[in-house]
Parts: sequence; structure tokens; C-alpha cells
Amino acid sequence: MTRRELLAGFTGALAPAWGAVRPDRLRQRIEKLSTFGRIAGGTFSNGVSRVGFSDADVAGREYVLGLMKHAGLQPRIDPAGNIWGRRNGRQDDLPPVLFGSHIDSVPNGGNFDGDLGSLGAIEVIEVLNETGARTRHPLEVVVWTNEEGVAYNNGLCGSRAAAGKLVPGELDHVWNGVRKADAFRKIGGDPDRIAEARIRRDLKCYLELHIEQGGTLDREGVAIGVVEGIVAIDRFAVEIAGFGNHAGTTRMADRQDALLAASRLVVAVNDIARTMPGRQVGTVGHLDVHPNAPNVVPGRVRMTVEFRDLSQATLRTMLERLRKAASEIGDVTRTTVTLNPASSHEAALADPALQDLVESSAKKLGFNSRRLPSGAGHDAQMAARLCPMGMIFVPSVGGISHSPKEFTSWEDCARGVQVLLESVQRAGA
Amino acid sequence: MTRRELLAGFTGALAPAWGAVRPDRLRQRIEKLSTFGRIAGGTFSNGVSRVGFSDADVAGREYVLGLMKHAGLQPRIDPAGNIWGRRNGRQDDLPPVLFGSHIDSVPNGGNFDGDLGSLGAIEVIEVLNETGARTRHPLEVVVWTNEEGVAYNNGLCGSRAAAGKLVPGELDHVWNGVRKADAFRKIGGDPDRIAEARIRRDLKCYLELHIEQGGTLDREGVAIGVVEGIVAIDRFAVEIAGFGNHAGTTRMADRQDALLAASRLVVAVNDIARTMPGRQVGTVGHLDVHPNAPNVVPGRVRMTVEFRDLSQATLRTMLERLRKAASEIGDVTRTTVTLNPASSHEAALADPALQDLVESSAKKLGFNSRRLPSGAGHDAQMAARLCPMGMIFVPSVGGISHSPKEFTSWEDCARGVQVLLESVQRAGA
Repeated sequence: MTRRELLAGFTGALAPAWGAVRPDRLRQRIEKLSTFGRIAGGTFSNGVSRVGFSDADVAGREYVLGLMKHAGLQPRIDPAGNIWGRRNGRQDDLPPVLFGSHIDSVPNGGNFDGDLGSLGAIEVIEVLNETGARTRHPLEVVVWTNEEGVAYNNGLCGSRAAAGKLVPGELDHVWNGVRKADAFRKIGGDPDRIAEARIRRDLKCYLELHIEQGGTLDREGVAIGVVEGIVAIDRFAVEIAGFGNHAGTTRMADRQDALLAASRLVVAVNDIARTMPGRQVGTVGHLDVHPNAPNVVPGRVRMTVEFRDLSQATLRTMLERLRKAASEIGDVTRTTVTLNPASSHEAALADPALQDLVESSAKKLGFNSRRLPSGAGHDAQMAARLCPMGMIFVPSVGGISHSPKEFTSWEDCARGVQVLLESVQRAGA
Repeated sequence: MTRRELLAGFTGALAPAWGAVRPDRLRQRIEKLSTFGRIAGGTFSNGVSRVGFSDADVAGREYVLGLMKHAGLQPRIDPAGNIWGRRNGRQDDLPPVLFGSHIDSVPNGGNFDGDLGSLGAIEVIEVLNETGARTRHPLEVVVWTNEEGVAYNNGLCGSRAAAGKLVPGELDHVWNGVRKADAFRKIGGDPDRIAEARIRRDLKCYLELHIEQGGTLDREGVAIGVVEGIVAIDRFAVEIAGFGNHAGTTRMADRQDALLAASRLVVAVNDIARTMPGRQVGTVGHLDVHPNAPNVVPGRVRMTVEFRDLSQATLRTMLERLRKAASEIGDVTRTTVTLNPASSHEAALADPALQDLVESSAKKLGFNSRRLPSGAGHDAQMAARLCPMGMIFVPSVGGISHSPKEFTSWEDCARGVQVLLESVQRAGA
């Protein structure tokens, strides 16, 4: 899609007041960023492995720093490694409108998760520079550190630092032989001053453009998702203790089969999530069997159960039903089923006024939209602790993400950035 | 139990004509054999790790060779590493009565599985030597090579060689970096002449004393199990292909969850085995999830299904029901469930006359008995291809086997050897 084609979609009255994004430039930059962490000899469609703090991450950050300099953003790196850039407003003492995303990826990830929101934020600044428009509030672009959390097994790293939510002792964590403090140093951060990464000044609001990573928009042919909030996630570590025994000599009636109990629990988790009204999900993604031999009745299973929903009440009901199912299954299979809470992340609701703003921006630009929750976590959930938060989703083809097959059409990418531009402008007006 | 106490159980008319085993000697030898493969600093109750072809196995074999020499058996090792010993009969050209077992173990196994039948066979010879009794048929004791098949993942190694059932290319298999041909050399075998390990001469019959490894005798307070046969085992490798996806962004209705399908199949296998009349068993012992992450809907599962029963017709019915369940589960979960036959072992029925012989021997000695199938595999199933086969079971406390907790009371061990002695005598009379 050329800039001309994007603009051709706008009728006179609805033509963007603030100029239009250049889809070709956006695409060229997303493709360039994809080379940092690409497998040797690969192409764009091979996806990317740019794990936070890796050499590829450092190289990708250098590229982004260059783009931000080019856009006049005079980037700086905070002690947590987050990259910040600022464009002054007409009233520069007003709280800034903040927007951005991340550029780290999962191993064998895609080229849109985070990259679109980061490079889209810079594109917004480029367009404003080209039109010479200036908002009343200052604008700030941020590229957060290590959102995926593959490194150190704990994500939203930079945004948690900004929200004052680092874990005690987090700097001492070691991953691949490197202390996290040293990882921060590697990307230009300063672990000795990490507390200063916490944001204590006023922010007008935070906006983040991101691919949906689910299939709702793509399936329904909707261009823009207006995010209602980021779901809460309750995760449990389940341990099932049966009795391991010879598969040939142990009668069915005498078995205490931990895998049979686990299987009934997997089915129960699915039933619980499916039979309640709403959009909640329940997943058993991890399950290990001991001793895991074809001819031994399993004696022990370790598995995870994860529930997600925007509503805390729904999560409470799901947990109640899980406990009841676990107890019944333990009785029937003569095993001991233990549910241990592993982690609990609260929901982060999008600001209603920002939802309206994004929705009306899409409408003004002639793009259809729908409201939906984000089932995935985002830096926006930490930003929501600092100021009103809003998110813009664009379709993921087939709902695929965290995969080299992750794809969003270049047209949808441009539409998303255009909505971000419109929303930023109106929020900062 | 002393020899005196064992004999005290016999009334005059029922006193064994052929002398009585010495429980103290039997125990002392089982305890001595347990030291070969015991963990450093451990005791008898730590069990044993004497995997076939290991240094511990070689050491244990040396010990057994010494015992056989002591008993006048003039042991020899055949090309497959099986240890043979012979005690002449009054008519030494008659086919011999063969009896024995194995001394290799699983890792972290117990001290009775195989050891009792091997050292019990030598004890039978010792008692005959002490009483000076001589059977009409010659007697032969055999200690089979690598019954468990932990090494090279294929058991009944020596007895398969004897039955001419080695797999083509088996000598070239590599395990822990060692070619199987070299493993045979390590224990005194001769891979270049392995075909000569096949038994082509007539055998009167084969008898094997073994622990039950299940809980039937222990639960019912029965001293002697008269084995009806060794069950057939059908094993399937099941592959379930779903679609791996983000656990937060993929609606329940859109999922193709391979673990959900696998769990339904685990439940179905259990239902199939439980709801049919009979003593068949069905087991899913091995299950691997991919990618096995808490926040990813599983895209693929590999699992095993194993069915065991004496009756081929029962196994056929179980397979039919498994296929039907797999097809239905694939439809409901929108996954592809593929059942691949992995291995199929025919049942080996015990000779009815030998079952009667063992039963009446137990009765004569004043021990209660019951008939039962063997759910576990044994060298006897290969011997059954060569001659009439019979097996004697003694109780496993709690039905536990392949575990350091495997235990059979010394009294029950002695009773089993006494029944073996009686049966061997009468078979060789």
C-alpha cells in the first residue's frame, strides 16, 4: 500500500488533519529491524530471535536509537534500559502523551510483536515533523526493555521498573551465566541507579499499538481493535501424587494412576472455561509425567493450570470450580491433587475515555473497529499503574503469534499507525 | 526362617521326598548378589542397579558362576551370554528339565526380580546334591542374559537368542556408545557364533520361579501362584497433532488442543480396560507435551497406549474400542489422532500339565495356591517356544516391583524354591 493508496481511502471531510503515515517507510523499517536476530541466510519470513539483552537486541536497539535521532527525538536510555524520546509541545510544562512498545522477541518469534508499536510510534513523530503540526502536550516515545521476559523468565522488565514493580533481588538473578545487573549495563542501563527508572512525574496518558496475537479481528474482518483491558492471569502449579507401579501386574482396580487424574483435570479445566458465560480461558500447557515409561503406571504428574479473564469475580468462580474438580478427581482416582498458586497478575483496564478516543479515531479514518480484551500481557498493563492507558490492536493473520508465521498485512499495519497518530494527536491536543 | 522351621510345616505324609531347601543359605546368597550394583554405602533395602551388560552385571555373573561351580554344575556360557549348568540324570540321553531365571535388573530395581529364580534354581541343585537324589532326566539350570532389556531397549535378550528370535541387525544396535556385539563379548558371549545360541535339542520342559510383581497373592494371603500364561502385550505410539497457540489470545472455541485430546484418550483407555469383563489392563505410561509451556495451548502430544491380556480376542476388542475413541476424540477436539502399532507380543500359555504339576506340588507341601496370569513379561515366554513351560509365583509385598521397595518374605522365597524343587523332581522323574 502506498501513501497515496492509504490516503485515497479518506473522503474529504474525514481526511486526517495531521498528515498520513508512509506505509512504505514503515514497512522498510520493520523489515530492516527484522535483520537483527534473523537466522543466517534467512529471510523476513524466517521470523526473528531477538531475546532481551542479547547481542541481537543490542543491535536492534542501536538501529532504533538511530531512527529516533533521525526523527529529532534526542533519545536517552534510563537506568532500566528503556529508550525515551521527546517531541516538545506548545505548552511544554503539561504532562506528556506517552506511546511506544518493545523490540525484544521470543526465540523464533515474529516481526510484528512489539516492533510495529515501536516503529509505529517513531512513524507518528516522522509524520508530525513532516506536517509541522505541534500538539499542546509534549509527546514521548518509549521502547521498553525485555517485554517478553524470555531472559530471566520475567517479562515487562522495563515497564515494571517504570512502575516501581521490580522484584526484590531481581538484579541478582542469573540467566545464561549473566547477572541481571550486568545485563542492564550491556544495554546502556545503570543497575546502581535502577530506582530512578521509576516514573514519578505526571503523564497525560499511555497509548500502545500492538498486533492482536489472537484471531478475533482477522476472523471478523475488523481493522482496529479497541482494547478494553489486559486480562488478569492466575497460574497454579498442580502436583498429583499417585503410586507408580508395573503396568502388567497392577490390576485396574488397584491403580493410583497420577496421569489418569491429571487427564481428568485437563478435561475439567477445559469444561470450566467453556461452560461459563464470557470470554475467559483456561489452559493446561505444561504437563510432566513420572517416570514416563510405557510400561509403568504413572506415579506422579506435575502440571500447570492457567486462568485468564478481565473479571476478578470470574477468576474466583473458576478457581472454586477447579478446587471442587481436583478434590473429586483425587477421591475417584485415589491420588492426592495439590493446587499451589504460582502467580497472580491483576487485570489492567483500559481508560474508558481512551477507549472512546481510539474508537472514534478509527471511525473518523473510515476503519471499522470492535472492542475486545487483550488475553496477552503487555507493557501497557504496567503503564496503567502510572496514568490512563489505552491500546490499539491490528489483526494477526490466523491469530498466529510468537511464531515466524506471525503476520499482519502492511495495510493493517499502516491503518494501526494512522489510528495511533490520530489518537496521540487528539490526546495531546 | 530356618531349615528346621520350613520342615516343621510338613506333616509326616507330606514331608518332601527330596530334602528341603536351606532358607538361610538362599537368603545369604540373595543378599550377597544384591551387593553387585548396590549404591555406595547402601544396604539391601536400597535395591540394586544391575543393568544387563554393565560392570555390576559382569560381577554378579561371576558370583553366580562361582555358586554353580560349587554346586557341581560345571557352568558354560553360550554365544548369547546365557549361563548353563547341568546335573546328569539316571538316563542322561533323555531331554533335560530346564529351570532358571535372570540376574540383571532395572535401574533402582529390587533384589528379588530374577535373582530368586536364578539362585533358587541353584539351591534346588544344592539340595539334590545334599540328599544324593538323582532324577531320571538330566537337569539344567540357566541364567538368561539381559532379561529387562534396559540395555538396548529390548528385553528377553538371551532367551530370544535361544528361541531364534533375535531381531535382524540386533548385534549392530548401539547403546551408551557400545555396539551390542561388543556387549555380548563383555559377558563372555560370542556374537560371531550367536546363531548357535539357538536351542535345537529337545527339552523336557522349562520351569521358572519368579516373584509375582503384582499384588494378587499378597492381598489374598496365597503362598504360591500357578501361572496360567504370560499375557500378550500390544503397544501403540500415539501422535496427536493440534495447533500450538497463545493461551491468552486463543478463544476456547478456536483451540485445537493436543493435550485436551490426549487427556480424553487417557480416560478412554482406562474406561476400555475397566468396563470389559476380565483381567485385561490398559495403560498410558508415557506422555510428552509440545511445546510444554504454561502459556501455550499444546500443539502436539506423543503418548503410548499399552494393552495386556492372555486372550487375543480381548486385545482385538480393546483395539477396536481404542480406534473408535481416537476417531471421536479427534473430531471433537479438531485434532488428528494417529495410532501407530509399536510392538505386539503374543501371549505364552503355560502348559496345562505343568500347571497341574505346580499346583499339586504346592498342595503336597501344604502351601495354598491359586492360578493367575502373568501381566509381566518373562524369559519363560521365549522358552515356551521351545518346550512346555510352567511358572511359579511367590507374593510381592504390596505388589511392588521394579523398585528398591520390592520385597518377598524370606519364608515365601523358601516356599517358592521348595515348590520348584518338588516340581523339577516330578517333571524329571
